[in-house]
Amino acid sequence: MPPGGPHLLRHDEMHPHAALHRLLHAMSLIGRTPEGGVHRPEGSEANREIRQLLVNWLNANDYTVRIDAVGNIFGIAETAGPNAPLIMTGSHVDSQPYGGRLDGAYGVAASCIAVETLRNELASAGAEARCNLCIVAWTNEEGARFQPSTLGSSVYAGLIDAEWALQRRDVDGTTVREALTSIGFLGKDVPPPMPEAFVELHVECGSTLEASNRRIGSFVGWWGVHKIDLKIVGAAAHTGPTPMRERRDALYAASLIIAEVRHLVDQFEEGRIHTSVGQIEVIPNSPNVVPAQAELRIEIRSGQLEVIREAVERLRQAVDKICIKTGTTAQTIRDELREPGRFSSRLIGLAQDTASEHGEDLLLLETICGHDAIRLAQHCDAIVTVVPSIEGICHSPFENTNPEDLELGMDLLTSMLRRLVVA
Amino acid sequence: MPPGGPHLLRHDEMHPHAALHRLLHAMSLIGRTPEGGVHRPEGSEANREIRQLLVNWLNANDYTVRIDAVGNIFGIAETAGPNAPLIMTGSHVDSQPYGGRLDGAYGVAASCIAVETLRNELASAGAEARCNLCIVAWTNEEGARFQPSTLGSSVYAGLIDAEWALQRRDVDGTTVREALTSIGFLGKDVPPPMPEAFVELHVECGSTLEASNRRIGSFVGWWGVHKIDLKIVGAAAHTGPTPMRERRDALYAASLIIAEVRHLVDQFEEGRIHTSVGQIEVIPNSPNVVPAQAELRIEIRSGQLEVIREAVERLRQAVDKICIKTGTTAQTIRDELREPGRFSSRLIGLAQDTASEHGEDLLLLETICGHDAIRLAQHCDAIVTVVPSIEGICHSPFENTNPEDLELGMDLLTSMLRRLVVA
Repeated sequence: MPPGGPHLLRHDEMHPHAALHRLLHAMSLIGRTPEGGVHRPEGSEANREIRQLLVNWLNANDYTVRIDAVGNIFGIAETAGPNAPLIMTGSHVDSQPYGGRLDGAYGVAASCIAVETLRNELASAGAEARCNLCIVAWTNEEGARFQPSTLGSSVYAGLIDAEWALQRRDVDGTTVREALTSIGFLGKDVPPPMPEAFVELHVECGSTLEASNRRIGSFVGWWGVHKIDLKIVGAAAHTGPTPMRERRDALYAASLIIAEVRHLVDQFEEGRIHTSVGQIEVIPNSPNVVPAQAELRIEIRSGQLEVIREAVERLRQAVDKICIKTGTTAQTIRDELREPGRFSSRLIGLAQDTASEHGEDLLLLETICGHDAIRLAQHCDAIVTVVPSIEGICHSPFENTNPEDLELGMDLLTSMLRRLVVA
Repeated sequence: MPPGGPHLLRHDEMHPHAALHRLLHAMSLIGRTPEGGVHRPEGSEANREIRQLLVNWLNANDYTVRIDAVGNIFGIAETAGPNAPLIMTGSHVDSQPYGGRLDGAYGVAASCIAVETLRNELASAGAEARCNLCIVAWTNEEGARFQPSTLGSSVYAGLIDAEWALQRRDVDGTTVREALTSIGFLGKDVPPPMPEAFVELHVECGSTLEASNRRIGSFVGWWGVHKIDLKIVGAAAHTGPTPMRERRDALYAASLIIAEVRHLVDQFEEGRIHTSVGQIEVIPNSPNVVPAQAELRIEIRSGQLEVIREAVERLRQAVDKICIKTGTTAQTIRDELREPGRFSSRLIGLAQDTASEHGEDLLLLETICGHDAIRLAQHCDAIVTVVPSIEGICHSPFENTNPEDLELGMDLLTSMLRRLVVA
């Protein structure tokens, strides 16, 4: 029976922990890889399957499903009435290429079970809540197939235009619009209004919780990131006879820049700055041709805006020197600064109280990743609560979390939502 | 009318120079790129078209066409009789990605016209030659889509096994067998026997002729090349939170190696050694993931075997250090040394004499490129004669040669073949 068949769709009377593991397991079968991870790039067949699983689950449990113009999926439970405020929870179902099964999917699965638990409580008590509830799965959070990351939540939060988002292209030239159309998830629904609060549950994607022997944490703020896409232009030539001094080798220039990006880290206090080049595209990329062009995707991250600015300035100076040395030119084709910021102190207080009720001490930490909650944080109270990643492994098929930590995270989410909805 | 239509196919009474330009122009329309180059990777649709043009031309002019198990195309003119020795001439019709229109195609087109000129002379004189003539287009000379380069001539010369050659895969996993089958050029014919002599005409792919103000040259020897494919293995991780000291970044390691490959050049006398990394493949190559794997195609070239050995040894030591520094491992997945060597002194003497007859002073030079003639040189007298490349540009859409130099090269080829066939 395929994932999302009838046996999975009704929430039933099952214990929430069992329901979480069942739903998460079903999700992890979609796009699974031999190492135990998943491969569900945005708009892929596997991405369609997990989206459909979610929609089937929402329909089977009587949520009002809305799919907006950029494919964000909303499942609304009108627990209070048409004009009541909204509490939203969720994450994303796209994955990194050959990534892990928990990143995103855990937050969505836990949101489904937590909201369903609350609805059942309200129904049993014959009570009406102060707020309506909404489960969400945001489009293209990872930024793996399409740039930028957190695409769906950025459109929802009004930070980027929907039409612009739909025109983004993957490396093969396919647009977001084409990809979403091909999987039947280019929607026409008006998304729900901005919620009063957005609570996202996620795996830490780091080792701080594990190192501090805590089982639960909340991000108090997020690091900023400067994303620079750099195109290095040299000239194609035969790798054999072309004299070395006449070569304008774009890959050689790119290599010096990649090394420079890494060496920026040594110029600041340890842990202050993270840098990376995760992607390179070379043209023509033939063994016998001096590379004519290389495109790099550079990230420079820090919790402090002035550190980012200083590092970017040093990198620019280094790139200028490398271009002169190698006879190449560099064009900045994307230059996007996402500033560091703080999550809602009200929700952090709520998370601390809720953790105490569960006998846990909430660790407050900073997030260095992008999250959909960061996009929403400019418009509503938003928070990300996290459970430990074993050995800090993330964006890898070996990403994992202990099952009881997954359960605890969901229990906390349920408690937080209960307080927000009922208070 | 498509290239290779009837107006092109018969050699007719046209002057050989005009016939050369007409055939070359027809070839350059196949797979042409906006910059004026051609894109005809082995086994592509454009490659099928130019192969078909050649076969049509050979058939229309009464050559016996044979296509062997790896797609090499032979057009045989029995000018002497079934058991007479063979003189072979030709080059290749695959191209570099977005490469130039002369590299390979010039040699094939000039061979067609030169051989046809000789046949017409023999027919007019009612004479029989000492040798038969054969025009050839070798499969996958460039090594751009499939590794190794000079694939077809290496099989013909018995240096590699046909079955092994057919199992080579491009980056998408397509085999040579599949590619040749898809374009209808996986042949079953027995190739002709090893010729007495093989004469290849080519563009220089360098600037030595131009710099010395000569119009014609011959290679007296070829540089050796050590081709190393290196796989660097690190570990995927999130580019955000993963602490810098815990990263095992395969692209960072690869960058240090690429820089080291280039810096090898500074450790030897200028012009003694050429090095390059033309191709890199990164996994997963996502902007937000620390690269888990990078594969590099490295070439180290020199006219002196001991220089190659010394450079390769230094590189290995550097790679070991880089791997320790970056927490990565390196696997050599291809390690092929092609030794330097000398072309036939008999044919070089012939080329000198012929050049003198045409009032030209033949420049003797070394080739740093791979050529099909190098593969054959271990079994028969072989030579490559060359005409200037403007500004030395090669493996680029901007590759070009003056038309009168193209004509001169063909005239010399015709004269050399005449002496070989009649003598």
